Amino acid sequence: MGLKKVYGLALDTPMERIDPWGGLELKDYEHLFKSFGLQAFPGEWNRKLHHALFERSMVVAHRDFGSVLERIQSKKPFINMTGIASSGKLHLGHKADIDLFAFFKSQAHARNYFCIADIDGYVSRPDEKVASLEKAKEFAVGNLSHALALGLNEKDAYVQSQASPAYYAFAFSLSKKITANMHEAIYGHVEFGKIAANLLQMADILHGQLEEFEGPLPSITGIGLDQDPHARLARDLARRALPNGFLPSFIYFKHQGGLLEGQKMSSSKPDTAIYLDDSQEQIARKIQRAFTGGKPTAKEQREQGANPDICRVCEILRFHYPNTKKLYERLDAYRKGDILDGENKAFTIEFVQGMLKKHQELAAKKQKIAERMVHGS
Amino acid sequence: MGLKKVYGLALDTPMERIDPWGGLELKDYEHLFKSFGLQAFPGEWNRKLHHALFERSMVVAHRDFGSVLERIQSKKPFINMTGIASSGKLHLGHKADIDLFAFFKSQAHARNYFCIADIDGYVSRPDEKVASLEKAKEFAVGNLSHALALGLNEKDAYVQSQASPAYYAFAFSLSKKITANMHEAIYGHVEFGKIAANLLQMADILHGQLEEFEGPLPSITGIGLDQDPHARLARDLARRALPNGFLPSFIYFKHQGGLLEGQKMSSSKPDTAIYLDDSQEQIARKIQRAFTGGKPTAKEQREQGANPDICRVCEILRFHYPNTKKLYERLDAYRKGDILDGENKAFTIEFVQGMLKKHQELAAKKQKIAERMVHGS
Repeated sequence: MGLKKVYGLALDTPMERIDPWGGLELKDYEHLFKSFGLQAFPGEWNRKLHHALFERSMVVAHRDFGSVLERIQSKKPFINMTGIASSGKLHLGHKADIDLFAFFKSQAHARNYFCIADIDGYVSRPDEKVASLEKAKEFAVGNLSHALALGLNEKDAYVQSQASPAYYAFAFSLSKKITANMHEAIYGHVEFGKIAANLLQMADILHGQLEEFEGPLPSITGIGLDQDPHARLARDLARRALPNGFLPSFIYFKHQGGLLEGQKMSSSKPDTAIYLDDSQEQIARKIQRAFTGGKPTAKEQREQGANPDICRVCEILRFHYPNTKKLYERLDAYRKGDILDGENKAFTIEFVQGMLKKHQELAAKKQKIAERMVHGS
Repeated sequence: MGLKKVYGLALDTPMERIDPWGGLELKDYEHLFKSFGLQAFPGEWNRKLHHALFERSMVVAHRDFGSVLERIQSKKPFINMTGIASSGKLHLGHKADIDLFAFFKSQAHARNYFCIADIDGYVSRPDEKVASLEKAKEFAVGNLSHALALGLNEKDAYVQSQASPAYYAFAFSLSKKITANMHEAIYGHVEFGKIAANLLQMADILHGQLEEFEGPLPSITGIGLDQDPHARLARDLARRALPNGFLPSFIYFKHQGGLLEGQKMSSSKPDTAIYLDDSQEQIARKIQRAFTGGKPTAKEQREQGANPDICRVCEILRFHYPNTKKLYERLDAYRKGDILDGENKAFTIEFVQGMLKKHQELAAKKQKIAERMVHGS
């Protein structure tokens, strides 16, 4: 998995290197928990948080989430922070991230910071992927209109390239709190673009606690396991940059896999993902071609059942189908062989088509606001 | 002098390393011209630019100044850019930098960008010197009120921590145009604070040429020879970051030396420099104690003459006394032994006291504007 031992760290946990830009699909959770000091997400917390992604145990790990949960339950303020690097179109995997953000936003006294990370998208990606800041801003407009359509308000979100001076001054100031050795221990030797992206990302995670914003508050950011290097740096940095602040909390969710066997969702391989702006035909075609947990013949599948745990069609439903009871009934029937792939695909196509049709209508209406927010008024 | 050979560079000139933060006093001009591709400043240009610092040959070298001179003479627009890192109080050496900026500002069609580099001052200096951005902003208020008192208007200057989003986005974007190898070749291995400071400094030098500001124009920035690494990086970067822009031009001036023998002006050694806010008593005391070019006894000096070229009292006059004819008469008389150190010091004390008294009255009036510009309105 490309992991490499690194010694002599000044941080709080023993660690190995993960490349957060590498598109690594992390599966060896146990190992990560041990090496990186992550905590498994307790089952009882899933029952306290009334959202499908928790009910379905899609959140697998956390750092210090207890302090935020306590705030949620006692209806005290906390910072709800997440971001998306503007380096491509949004797919269903991103929708799950935004759904989680929208869930925290729905809790009493959430202070919301949804970052459209356009500068990050440009500087941390190779030119082949994002050739200019202007290109990143194009992506940003699209991404933001989708995020707004998924339940965010204008005031819940900000665009990196249109942030306030206090934010930028903080991002640059953080450079003095990170030693080159510490950074290299976490990320290896990286180019300046990724260093700059990290300053921005750290500012994104931490700036809500500055006096110019909310002041010190616990914060929650949902990320994938491959993003844990950023979480470790952010927590280490908070100790020095926010001496009166809270260490930021993180929850780690499973990433929705790609539609094809052995592939993760990837912007560079369009058939591995359903984009939020895919046409009805594209949705149908991609789900038709998706990797399933079925058997070679209908007869075998009726007799032996199928495996919903490896089925990418079932996975779409797991991440996005709103009714958990009906979802589990369907997965159960699929496992038993009562539902075949054809029927399951047809059902999922209809569901996703309906969901994205409504979503796209809403996103179209948010386009103007998004443009204004990205390009300035 | 702590210089070290570096090979394998991708830049346009062979080079050695100079630490621009090292407080190095560069004297071996010839050597630098050869190694770094600087051009000697032609005597005929000094006669075309009607300012004391040119008349007195205080500008020793340049990169591509011809393109700016041509603009000045044909009354076409050019960018006049310089900056001061907010890491201490301003002394007479800084006054010379600002005088030069004010001179270019007085030329027709100068577009003025005087940067109060408060973030730079914080991130590029050790904590012992500038412990926080707040501390840098304190210095910034002082520095800015002095700059305004020296002839700058509010619209000629900007404060790094209060800049526009387009400036910051550009600064971060530059990270993608600098490879870690290139940076290390120029600066050696430096900490993140200095990398961040360089992104800001490069943005300071180049951002005036963005479409959001002036669009492509030749630019002039006056620096000391020890700042040449920044000039080389800026010119190299301009090729990639501003494909339709001009390479920035630089002139290099002699730094005013410290008041004591063998010492350069240094904020950490107050007796080596006269600060713009020194009291009348401090001015008198510091000049009284300054290193001169005189002889052990008055008799010897009358007979053998003195050396104005090593005399730090004469140097103050060289940099700041407005009347060049009278200055040269005085230096000549000093050289011949007609003027003794006592008289020369008394004259210089009176001159500096008068100049700074007026200046300080004006600076006090600019304090409020400076505070508003540094802290935001």
